[in-house]
Amino acid sequence: MTDNENTPVSVVGLGLMGTALARAFLKAGHPTTVWNRTAAKANALVAEGARLAPTIGDALGPGGVTILCLTDYSAVRELLGDAGLEGTKLVNLTSGDSAQARETAAWAEKRGARYVDGAIMAIPSAIGTADAVILLSGPRPDFEIGALGTISYLGEDPGLASLYDVAGLTMMWSVLNAWLHGTAMLKTAGIDAATYAPFAQQIAVGVAGWLPGYAEQVDKDSFPAEVSALETDARAMAHMVEESEALGVNAELPKLIKAMADRAIAAGHGGEQYPVLIREFERAGE
Amino acid sequence: MTDNENTPVSVVGLGLMGTALARAFLKAGHPTTVWNRTAAKANALVAEGARLAPTIGDALGPGGVTILCLTDYSAVRELLGDAGLEGTKLVNLTSGDSAQARETAAWAEKRGARYVDGAIMAIPSAIGTADAVILLSGPRPDFEIGALGTISYLGEDPGLASLYDVAGLTMMWSVLNAWLHGTAMLKTAGIDAATYAPFAQQIAVGVAGWLPGYAEQVDKDSFPAEVSALETDARAMAHMVEESEALGVNAELPKLIKAMADRAIAAGHGGEQYPVLIREFERAGE
Ligand SMILES: NC(=O)c1ccc[n+]([C@@H]2O[C@H](COP(=O)([O-])OP(=O)(O)OC[C@H]3O[C@@H](n4cnc5c(N)ncnc54)[C@H](OP(=O)(O)O)[C@@H]3O)[C@@H](O)[C@H]2O)c1
Ligand SMILES: NC(=O)c1ccc[n+]([C@@H]2O[C@H](COP(=O)([O-])OP(=O)(O)OC[C@H]3O[C@@H](n4cnc5c(N)ncnc54)[C@H](OP(=O)(O)O)[C@@H]3O)[C@@H](O)[C@H]2O)c1
Repeated sequence: MTDNENTPVSVVGLGLMGTALARAFLKAGHPTTVWNRTAAKANALVAEGARLAPTIGDALGPGGVTILCLTDYSAVRELLGDAGLEGTKLVNLTSGDSAQARETAAWAEKRGARYVDGAIMAIPSAIGTADAVILLSGPRPDFEIGALGTISYLGEDPGLASLYDVAGLTMMWSVLNAWLHGTAMLKTAGIDAATYAPFAQQIAVGVAGWLPGYAEQVDKDSFPAEVSALETDARAMAHMVEESEALGVNAELPKLIKAMADRAIAAGHGGEQYPVLIREFERAGE
Repeated sequence: MTDNENTPVSVVGLGLMGTALARAFLKAGHPTTVWNRTAAKANALVAEGARLAPTIGDALGPGGVTILCLTDYSAVRELLGDAGLEGTKLVNLTSGDSAQARETAAWAEKRGARYVDGAIMAIPSAIGTADAVILLSGPRPDFEIGALGTISYLGEDPGLASLYDVAGLTMMWSVLNAWLHGTAMLKTAGIDAATYAPFAQQIAVGVAGWLPGYAEQVDKDSFPAEVSALETDARAMAHMVEESEALGVNAELPKLIKAMADRAIAAGHGGEQYPVLIREFERAGE
């Protein structure tokens, strides 16, 4: 990547997110062109120094990089369907799934574009700060868009940004749900959420630290019970379900945890270590 | 707590865990008495310097603290049923639920014991290191058992150690399952577990950092959508479920996440922020 704040950029799609992206580029000093189907949404940005592209074709003009941020992939395909893409550099930050990303990449490349797919793991107000993580995948970026946040390049496969995005969301809601489950349990004993939160945080951070080591077991496809065997875990899981039920809090999360472990045990993995559950996660469930 | 390695301790129950506890006390220089139903299990510890109590009553002798670590609470009640408990200090590190802990505390106190309940969040090989977290609840400990690991006193209610233990287990397996789900998704794109693990770790640590702030919303019972509204989250959740299904990986975890959010939206909380789901976690599920 070149570290050049003078790289001209275009932002196509000035919804909540696109407007935040364009504003971050302007603040960082990029010459910024904007385009939106409903042109009036560009007014504030133009007042802040953006150039309004009269046509979508003008916004795609070569020599810079064009950020796309529309509702969904079909809007992208509809909008760019008739436009000349030869020599353009597109960065599509519209949310979608990995299949859409790969199809759109192939479609755009066939028409002469250099196409990078992306996913924004942030809300509009975080754009322009290091907290805004933006995932990119496809051909290695040869442009600098660090003005938007923390840019993470994941590899050549344009589907990767979507996959990491979804994986990150599953982790986010799993941590939040486990915390809420614990909070609900502790509330039955009169403990408030603020008292419990640092404990939950400490466990989450501690367990997150195990992941690189556990990943080695997955990659070797070998799960010796160095720490504890799944069968031992399952006894504690039964206790977790029973305690939740006895307290009258929601037990669906503990039950799902136990059901997946039970299936792995039934499949003969009771003497192995927890990451052997990758076998269950790799196949469609019940 | 007194910081006295000369506090005499007894360890009752010399299974895998009890043996590790007794050994950690011996290493730290505590005068250590041991007792086990099957006496032969004490031999190695006696060779290492432990004193063998001839009877259970002798192991409970006053002047020290007695650690109980048996299979379950009924074993504890059975063993101590006939013993004199007047003036004893008991720390029951046997696993059980919060109701059993509270009942056993009341039972032991009525018989003149000072009873502290506990839960061991560690495997035997970690005992004696800072990684071994031992939760205590009941009357504030006036003895020092830091030789066992990191001691965390949670409050007067003897049920708290069990509740925090179960809450911690839910968090542990939730982080592991979210990581396994992501690993399964990324494997479909040829990304190995070791490549994905640091990303998963970073998300888990980042989200864990939100918990103290989110806890304030729960304690105020007020959930303004400062970051994002549940309705917006639900769209990303639908995408998470669809991507998982399209890839053929297990979608039960994403589906449960979405189902709980959908119920909160159906109950009228779509414009509020995620922690409003405490309402769902506080009541028995479907
Ligand atoms: N907002 C967030 O918190 C957030 C977070 C992460 C990712 N994202 C993703 O960012 C993308 C944009 O989100 P947003 O919040 O900015 O949405 P938004 O406010 O609804 O804006 C949607 C944009 O897409 C344009 N558009 C839709 N269909 C079009 C078409 N057929 N042709 C041309 N333009 C079209 C709209 O143009 P008009 O103004 O003419 O309607 C508008 O500029 C989405 O994929 C979203 O998932 C958003
Ligand atoms: N091992 C772990 O990784 C781990 C981790 C956290 C917590 N814990 C908890 O620690 C406790 C002990 O676990 P452990 O792994 O040491 O189990 P274990 O190896 O099976 O040992 C069980 C102990 O309980 C004794 N016992 C059982 N019933 C008895 C009775 N009616 N009267 C007298 N003694 C009786 C046994 O005596 P005999 O030798 O005579 O049979 C033995 O000393 C459990 O509550 C467990 O959940 C264990």
